[in-house]
Amino acid sequence: MSTPIETIARKRDGAELGRDELAELIGGYAREQVPDYQMAAFLMAGYLNGFTRAEAAAMTEAMVASGDSLDLSGLRGPTVDKHSTGGVADGTTLIVAPLAAALGMQVVKLSGRGLGHTGGTLDKLESIPGMRVELGERAMLDQAERIGLVVAAQSGELVPADRAIYALRDVTATVGNPALIAASVMSKKLAGGAAVILLDVKTGPGAFMKSPESAAELAGLCVDIGAKAGRTTAALVTDMSQPLGDLVGNAVEVREAVEVLRGERGGRLTELSLVLTGHLAALAGLVPGPDEGVQAAAAALADGRGLEKLRAMVEAQGGDAKVLDDLSLLPSAPVTLPVLAEETGWLAAVDTEGVGRLAASLGAGRQRKTDTIDPAVAVELTAKLGDRVEAGAPVGAIMAAVRAAAERAAAGLLGLLDVGPDPVEPPPLVRGEVRA
Amino acid sequence: MSTPIETIARKRDGAELGRDELAELIGGYAREQVPDYQMAAFLMAGYLNGFTRAEAAAMTEAMVASGDSLDLSGLRGPTVDKHSTGGVADGTTLIVAPLAAALGMQVVKLSGRGLGHTGGTLDKLESIPGMRVELGERAMLDQAERIGLVVAAQSGELVPADRAIYALRDVTATVGNPALIAASVMSKKLAGGAAVILLDVKTGPGAFMKSPESAAELAGLCVDIGAKAGRTTAALVTDMSQPLGDLVGNAVEVREAVEVLRGERGGRLTELSLVLTGHLAALAGLVPGPDEGVQAAAAALADGRGLEKLRAMVEAQGGDAKVLDDLSLLPSAPVTLPVLAEETGWLAAVDTEGVGRLAASLGAGRQRKTDTIDPAVAVELTAKLGDRVEAGAPVGAIMAAVRAAAERAAAGLLGLLDVGPDPVEPPPLVRGEVRA
Repeated sequence: MSTPIETIARKRDGAELGRDELAELIGGYAREQVPDYQMAAFLMAGYLNGFTRAEAAAMTEAMVASGDSLDLSGLRGPTVDKHSTGGVADGTTLIVAPLAAALGMQVVKLSGRGLGHTGGTLDKLESIPGMRVELGERAMLDQAERIGLVVAAQSGELVPADRAIYALRDVTATVGNPALIAASVMSKKLAGGAAVILLDVKTGPGAFMKSPESAAELAGLCVDIGAKAGRTTAALVTDMSQPLGDLVGNAVEVREAVEVLRGERGGRLTELSLVLTGHLAALAGLVPGPDEGVQAAAAALADGRGLEKLRAMVEAQGGDAKVLDDLSLLPSAPVTLPVLAEETGWLAAVDTEGVGRLAASLGAGRQRKTDTIDPAVAVELTAKLGDRVEAGAPVGAIMAAVRAAAERAAAGLLGLLDVGPDPVEPPPLVRGEVRA
Repeated sequence: MSTPIETIARKRDGAELGRDELAELIGGYAREQVPDYQMAAFLMAGYLNGFTRAEAAAMTEAMVASGDSLDLSGLRGPTVDKHSTGGVADGTTLIVAPLAAALGMQVVKLSGRGLGHTGGTLDKLESIPGMRVELGERAMLDQAERIGLVVAAQSGELVPADRAIYALRDVTATVGNPALIAASVMSKKLAGGAAVILLDVKTGPGAFMKSPESAAELAGLCVDIGAKAGRTTAALVTDMSQPLGDLVGNAVEVREAVEVLRGERGGRLTELSLVLTGHLAALAGLVPGPDEGVQAAAAALADGRGLEKLRAMVEAQGGDAKVLDDLSLLPSAPVTLPVLAEETGWLAAVDTEGVGRLAASLGAGRQRKTDTIDPAVAVELTAKLGDRVEAGAPVGAIMAAVRAAAERAAAGLLGLLDVGPDPVEPPPLVRGEVRA
């Protein structure tokens, strides 16, 4: 038994903490026996002195133990999960999950709502009329067994220690520590129950991890934690120096996903979705390697099996599946205003986080957890890094509730783009891969 | 305006914080607008990244500003204060303050109660029948002007930020940072109002600062803070590798001080009291230098002027001054048990903190602030480092309420002494001096 003060002092002095003392501290905090101020001192000591991989795994384990876990062992499997560390126009879940299900995997994806500049899959799904995302555990497991696919809000009390620690990190300047981020991410994934976990760690100015190196470090930590917990875990480090898809919003991201699954769109969103699905198939042992997995995913997209899985999920969760055939049934904004380039040149940089914030400011996202969102408003940015843009030609559009807001946002979007006089090489989409 | 999170983040990243942002953070904490968990994260960031001298001074200033200050500017002066960082058998206040008053200084000493292994001057004074230590500000100033001497509990709300921060440091493993210690010490001294401040920074196994180097660092920080605040400040680094006087308790320490002031005792307690008084006289400009100050202090001791000042103070604060003539009127313990050495040799080491804890365990001190103390119980240790001790001859005594407790404590005291076969050099009493 260590007291919280002893554990804090040991981390302060640079010691590597043991599994038991971390379990005591984090478990005690989750049970409200350890006060906020002791956890805050511990977090700052760890932020500055760092955590070893063993410590990160032990913290994750303690956080998982603080709440319920989803037991997927009764499903026939392979059960898989995919997690993105947060991007803009990152609609991959709505594409990867149906494709993975189409390839025979079982996907029970517990998703979140948007906050700040990143969107949330649940908010997007709820733009489909009738769609339910609050399901009981039994219903989730039944649906997964029946159609291989469920995307829903977490039921029960998953990882309360993470929720509490995350909120505390946010107000004590201890957010940006790789081990704490990894423990937060992986505790939720482990509690989610899947045997195969694939992480999509974003890097770039619009991502939490600004450099590929820091993203690779986080990816390595997460994969190590997953492996230590007996899960098949891998991570891709992918680019977030620009919005992944063309559309940032809620209904529009459903539309874009459906268009991808219909085979009507190419581009980076489609490409990354196929890569992620292919890696999942390989990790799940359904194909020899990621390349064969990508081929299988592309086939499931081409022949419409992915779209049919999405349809089955929408129907199973009470949504109006007619929207998949008629996208005009989705909420649409009263005003759509094209955004025209002011100068001619090459698109050299996008303030990606700014684009996310711009969409949120229109009503697509939340500043506070209690805010409500407008499913119809959106920012569209069709120009990609390296594209040639011409003064007066459209680079995107704003979908807004009123014209004044659209005009403000259009000017705002142009201010987020850096158009230069020289040709620019588009950044690579996948920057690295980490396996256990 | 900086938010607390921004200030924490800057300290976390190693920046030097400005006066204004430290004032906002510490003032906000004192007003309960900044929560404990943010202050805890800040304290740990500062503990690990350190504070500059400018930051230490700014924190001290903000702490002083959080409460009331004593205004001594109406006294004719010179007003002086002396502060020890906490020792065992450190009864210097009861000797230095009367001697300083006898030399013409005005001493308004706000003192504390004992906690843990160190004694408190107020507890000691209260062993004099009738003695009041809770005085109003007006009464303190009147008494100082009239007789030059008052030792009392703080009135009003002096430095509430220090009290709150100290309590928080205690439970977040952030006690041992020199700048935080210096700010805590100096905020109380600055609020106490004296123009001249002399610090007695203890060093040794029984002190908070274990090494002379760390004590000198703390002394330097304190002196710098005092100088920046416009006070004449100096510090001595003095030895606490053994109890300073012979007696550890409350009534016994009054007795010992009276015996010193009567000229009946020599030894390290007397010597250090004269050195401290001499330095105060020099800092106050009453004598050319410390050597002349020590001579003046010795003269005031020899001719009884110091004892008369103590008598005047006891009378002014309602105490029975007859105890100064008849020490048997002080509370005395029912049982006095000599402690006899078990082996012959030289006294090589004393667990000084252990001696303090032993006295506290008899009832002379407090484990918690709400504990009551027994003024009569005590530990006496007459053997000093380097002394020859003989098996079967007394090295000290225990004064206790019951015989069983005395026997336990006697065995305990022997266990705190290290008697070796080789002669030992006594440690120097004064290890260094720091002036602005």
